[in-house]
Amino acid sequence: MIVETVSTFPEIFDSYMSSSIMKRAQEKGFLDFHAYNLRDWSEGVHKKTDDKPYGGGCGQLMMCEPIFKAFDEIKDKFEEKPFVVFLAPTGKVFNDEEALKLSKKSRLTFVCGHYEGIDERAYSLADEIYNIGDYVLSSGELASMVVIDSAVRKIPGVLGAEDGAIDESFSNGLLEAPQYTRPAEFRGMKVPDVLMSGDHAKIAEWKDKMSKERTKKCRPDLLEK
Amino acid sequence: MIVETVSTFPEIFDSYMSSSIMKRAQEKGFLDFHAYNLRDWSEGVHKKTDDKPYGGGCGQLMMCEPIFKAFDEIKDKFEEKPFVVFLAPTGKVFNDEEALKLSKKSRLTFVCGHYEGIDERAYSLADEIYNIGDYVLSSGELASMVVIDSAVRKIPGVLGAEDGAIDESFSNGLLEAPQYTRPAEFRGMKVPDVLMSGDHAKIAEWKDKMSKERTKKCRPDLLEK
Repeated sequence: MIVETVSTFPEIFDSYMSSSIMKRAQEKGFLDFHAYNLRDWSEGVHKKTDDKPYGGGCGQLMMCEPIFKAFDEIKDKFEEKPFVVFLAPTGKVFNDEEALKLSKKSRLTFVCGHYEGIDERAYSLADEIYNIGDYVLSSGELASMVVIDSAVRKIPGVLGAEDGAIDESFSNGLLEAPQYTRPAEFRGMKVPDVLMSGDHAKIAEWKDKMSKERTKKCRPDLLEK
Repeated sequence: MIVETVSTFPEIFDSYMSSSIMKRAQEKGFLDFHAYNLRDWSEGVHKKTDDKPYGGGCGQLMMCEPIFKAFDEIKDKFEEKPFVVFLAPTGKVFNDEEALKLSKKSRLTFVCGHYEGIDERAYSLADEIYNIGDYVLSSGELASMVVIDSAVRKIPGVLGAEDGAIDESFSNGLLEAPQYTRPAEFRGMKVPDVLMSGDHAKIAEWKDKMSKERTKKCRPDLLEK
């Protein structure tokens, strides 16, 4: 999958993209990542990409012109048609199902706002606008990394165990059962006996029960869906 | 505010914490950030921090022992009592209100899982467990950055304009109105006349109307709250 980002702080992606799973995904050829600097399409000596909002209000707004110019140039960089993603509070609520959809695309292109927001007209470039949660971030780069991570890890082969992303929270509409590893007892806290019984049917039954109980207790809204 | 993270990939924080608003927050003395490496509290030559889950299942689980040992040591590093945050699908849904609450703490300590998850017993250390969205990330570091960013930007003085974080989406329970900056017309798309009218009462009325319409259209669930 080709993943591209257009932003004013492309260096924000550096550490994350060169660590752990994202690093491995690139080494194994699952991910081809490009972070473009929006300033390359801005004008003047100051490489201005933002300006004051019309009608007043605090902060600076990202101008639409450099964003459109960036797209004019990058859209033909690869044979694959870009699927363009913007992140905004007004967007569709991003979830596990949407991550799976994105994981099947051949090319994702993200536009990342910063500070106050983006000129409304730029959103006309979007194939999808997502909201990753009901909070505000100063950095669209960070929001994009969340979407990139959750989608890339679903590409078959990216995680070590092929099915690592299947048997987990949300993938079946439920929260996962509690998990334990060694030691069997730590500071008086014991691993539930059933998990050490070796009885696979009983273990599966316990996990299923715990998963349902947990979802009912912590996220009853998931059960309604 | 002191912000600490305990994780196996502390380097993931590097670029983000040295860019833009997080960089400025540190330079101005609003933020004192420390990323600890969990491996410093693991044993053996391999500095093992994870192991197979009891009862089977794919992937590796983060062991509770190094996490407890890390806390034994770091809890007294500063005079302020740490408010300990874990990120997990089973957590309380994180939102703008919770970000505001966290922004008032003097010390936040995050435990970041990686890959499959964390031994259930470690969660007993948590003062709060948050869910940042109904999707799964391979990196708790990334989820922590989301929470850190949304909280730190709410500390008065961190954003350039004092009220930058007040007049925005979610802070009044609604989505923000569309915003525009120069040029007044771009590729046939015009800025709404009212925003260039200079009539502040009319502009405020328009913004309020658009904000409500948008919320009704995109996120009717916010209006129900």
